[in-house]
Amino acid sequence: MPIQTKSIHRTLDDLIRRVWKENVRLKASGLVTMTWGNVSGIDRRRGIVVIKPSGMDYATLRPADMVLTDLDGRRLEPASRLESARMPSTDLPTHLVLYREFAEIGGVVHTHSTYATAFAQACRSLPCLGTTHADYCYGEVPVTEIMRPSAIREHYEANTGRMIVRKIRRLRLQPMVCPFILVANHAPFAWGANPAAAVENAIVLEAISKMALLTFLLDGRRTGISQALLEKHYLRKHGQSAYYGQAQPGVPIHGNIHPRH
Amino acid sequence: MPIQTKSIHRTLDDLIRRVWKENVRLKASGLVTMTWGNVSGIDRRRGIVVIKPSGMDYATLRPADMVLTDLDGRRLEPASRLESARMPSTDLPTHLVLYREFAEIGGVVHTHSTYATAFAQACRSLPCLGTTHADYCYGEVPVTEIMRPSAIREHYEANTGRMIVRKIRRLRLQPMVCPFILVANHAPFAWGANPAAAVENAIVLEAISKMALLTFLLDGRRTGISQALLEKHYLRKHGQSAYYGQAQPGVPIHGNIHPRH
Amino acid sequence: MPIQTKSIHRTLDDLIRRVWKENVRLKASGLVTMTWGNVSGIDRRRGIVVIKPSGMDYATLRPADMVLTDLDGRRLEPASRLESARMPSTDLPTHLVLYREFAEIGGVVHTHSTYATAFAQACRSLPCLGTTHADYCYGEVPVTEIMRPSAIREHYEANTGRMIVRKIRRLRLQPMVCPFILVANHAPFAWGANPAAAVENAIVLEAISKMALLTFLLDGRRTGISQALLEKHYLRKHGQSAYYGQAQPGVPIHGNIHPRH
Amino acid sequence: MPIQTKSIHRTLDDLIRRVWKENVRLKASGLVTMTWGNVSGIDRRRGIVVIKPSGMDYATLRPADMVLTDLDGRRLEPASRLESARMPSTDLPTHLVLYREFAEIGGVVHTHSTYATAFAQACRSLPCLGTTHADYCYGEVPVTEIMRPSAIREHYEANTGRMIVRKIRRLRLQPMVCPFILVANHAPFAWGANPAAAVENAIVLEAISKMALLTFLLDGRRTGISQALLEKHYLRKHGQSAYYGQAQPGVPIHGNIHPRH
Repeated sequence: MPIQTKSIHRTLDDLIRRVWKENVRLKASGLVTMTWGNVSGIDRRRGIVVIKPSGMDYATLRPADMVLTDLDGRRLEPASRLESARMPSTDLPTHLVLYREFAEIGGVVHTHSTYATAFAQACRSLPCLGTTHADYCYGEVPVTEIMRPSAIREHYEANTGRMIVRKIRRLRLQPMVCPFILVANHAPFAWGANPAAAVENAIVLEAISKMALLTFLLDGRRTGISQALLEKHYLRKHGQSAYYGQAQPGVPIHGNIHPRH
Repeated sequence: MPIQTKSIHRTLDDLIRRVWKENVRLKASGLVTMTWGNVSGIDRRRGIVVIKPSGMDYATLRPADMVLTDLDGRRLEPASRLESARMPSTDLPTHLVLYREFAEIGGVVHTHSTYATAFAQACRSLPCLGTTHADYCYGEVPVTEIMRPSAIREHYEANTGRMIVRKIRRLRLQPMVCPFILVANHAPFAWGANPAAAVENAIVLEAISKMALLTFLLDGRRTGISQALLEKHYLRKHGQSAYYGQAQPGVPIHGNIHPRH
Repeated sequence: MPIQTKSIHRTLDDLIRRVWKENVRLKASGLVTMTWGNVSGIDRRRGIVVIKPSGMDYATLRPADMVLTDLDGRRLEPASRLESARMPSTDLPTHLVLYREFAEIGGVVHTHSTYATAFAQACRSLPCLGTTHADYCYGEVPVTEIMRPSAIREHYEANTGRMIVRKIRRLRLQPMVCPFILVANHAPFAWGANPAAAVENAIVLEAISKMALLTFLLDGRRTGISQALLEKHYLRKHGQSAYYGQAQPGVPIHGNIHPRH
Repeated sequence: MPIQTKSIHRTLDDLIRRVWKENVRLKASGLVTMTWGNVSGIDRRRGIVVIKPSGMDYATLRPADMVLTDLDGRRLEPASRLESARMPSTDLPTHLVLYREFAEIGGVVHTHSTYATAFAQACRSLPCLGTTHADYCYGEVPVTEIMRPSAIREHYEANTGRMIVRKIRRLRLQPMVCPFILVANHAPFAWGANPAAAVENAIVLEAISKMALLTFLLDGRRTGISQALLEKHYLRKHGQSAYYGQAQPGVPIHGNIHPRH
């Protein structure tokens, strides 16, 4: 897959800089201890994914360290001059499964943010306990099933992506209507229309996870808010009748929203 | 409602700057994730409310972005030169209900601060568990009733304000004596004599919510402090016999204080 | 009580600057929300107490704002040039009771720090659950009895000091061996040989309160460490055989240490 | 043990600077209140240990304050010019036991970090509840037995080291495969191939302790993840088939890994 034309260079350069910037911002957001987090982005027209290199410190990260692959994880040709000598994040196969499966996704984020990870470790989904949650996610944040040993031993990272897809398909969720998930025994993934939106969703998930845990400490049996309140808040921010923000309707809804319960 | 005279310009300019400054301060206080918070202020003589624009990042917010409306939410004429092109906070109708109902209020704040929101999500009121609480609020911080679907579907934000007013009226509270409330399944509102006082009350509510949640973790059945201690601390800071601070009596009490229980 | 000689000016000036500095440091330590904290110091030879003015913002506080009184709370003469025009902290009478009762105390701190206040609100003493606690306090941190309404209505702040003294006397504690206490339904007080030591003890109390609350979440029935471990850690840092730090024996023990249980 | 050659000076100078730097970094990481933490490093060829001086503020710490001893705790000769006039950390004997017992250790860290200390105070081990934990530690983080009074009264710090060694030996753990432990009623120790790795492990232990405590709040009976997931994550980062980071296989595994249960 040789890349030669200037315009591609320019487009990809822009994506590389944005993915780099969002990785740095993710660290600055306080969601990431050590190097436990990565952001990727995709150029859908070229089928090229840009992702953080594995295990590198955010403080020394430069745009040139970002790794480029196609949707099957194959590295770009060295001659492309955009090629990094780095190894990609080990979570790359999980990102790729999500990009291949959900055409509307433009950015993916993985973190081990503390409160969302607590829910993932407890293998508990996150019910919609308030309007903060409803503003971003139409219903419960699901937790994946626990992986079988055979799925762990071979192609673990790709299988993590498949567990996410399976859970979303089984619940008949639209990925942009619930832009994050908890991977059982592991940690959260978040996504969005672009890398910046994915990082915002990762920040939101951590905030609503903390609120939910504290709510459970006050009342261990809370279940969820009414369907009317869920709809009101979600649709206030998303879809054709949205009226939050400066440019409504801001975020298109892909297909119809159906309550899950 | 054309606005022409210089003096009005000067007065409104001052209010606009103060509302802008308090929005920035609210963000700096750590109470606000993303854009989940807004401050408004009112010029009672002119009947003009100034409020944060919807969904805008605090880092780029300028005084000129503030939105001006009358008490019914009608925008000022563009010719006024004070007109912002922005959309107001979606919570504007809630603020307006509070301004119309409580003449002593000069500023209103809405946040989704973590601990106060946990109480709101648990639909639990905040009993007065200590003197920190008693210094600012004469008794329990109430939580509103859960909204009916019909009240959610139409005029949701104005109805949120009405739920707040109803709860305060039913408990025969004076709004300045309990300057905040928890909206069930949602988050807190706070107010004060001016925008700065409203922001301070929002900060206080978050602090006493965290203290109360931690107190419940140590003793789940705490109820509240004695009437004598509540009165002592509240009146040490408020009313004619106040002796806290540098300019006593600092904060006038509107009417008599009556214990609620 | 006219103050005229230069040397007194110099000594008092030094104390004023140190009390001012420790108030600023207390705020910077993160223990103080709003203006909920104050530090005082005493010049034992002159019988003069220096304390923070009431309700003033730490950011604008200057040494000249510090208030000077004698041990009965009488202000110094204006002619002294060290006189501040400010009102003293409303908690001054509590500080004075402690200075009058405990001759070894050189500084007093009051805060509403979150975790220590949670224990005070829960009316729970803080058992010594680990060596962090034992390094600073020889045994349980007591909580005072709940005040009777009559003691609240008249001379409340002085009575708060008397409740502290009564609890310490009843437990036969030496104040420097347990340099902090929890006032029931209120918040903590801490003290030390000087204002800086008092602030350090306030910071320590908040840290061990947080550790204790988290320990109780893991095991609600923890009681305390062994007498041997308590003695070892306390005496490693305090008394004639202390061997912690750069200048042992660093902190004299006043009298003998006796276990309380 | 006179030290004369230039090359030794250079090597030791480098170790002294690194130990100093890691002590400063430990403080900056937020794990340390007051002076409750210390880092040491070892020059195995010379048998020289470098450690923080006792009770000194990190803000004023300079490389020249670091203390040098041999593996039995004997100070270097003053003539060495590398000699510090400071007293070493009182925890030095614990560090020395670990260095003598585990040849693969190049750095040791002791902190009273809040969440790890809560587990230590509760005398609870930290089961592997998720992949964050599995990435750094192959199985449960053990807690030592409670010390007998006789072991506390004499050679307390060395006996603390012996309690750590005994627990690790009894569980047949390899120290690099579980690079931290909880000392009952006290606080954690962490170690690594060098001082920087030891500090990283101390940071990791605090993070996974917080995650575990929050997980227990959501489900008090969690036990641990599957053997397959534990192996996958640990071996993704450690040993010959590691594929995390930029230079695999990054961390050698000493001997074979065996599950403990």
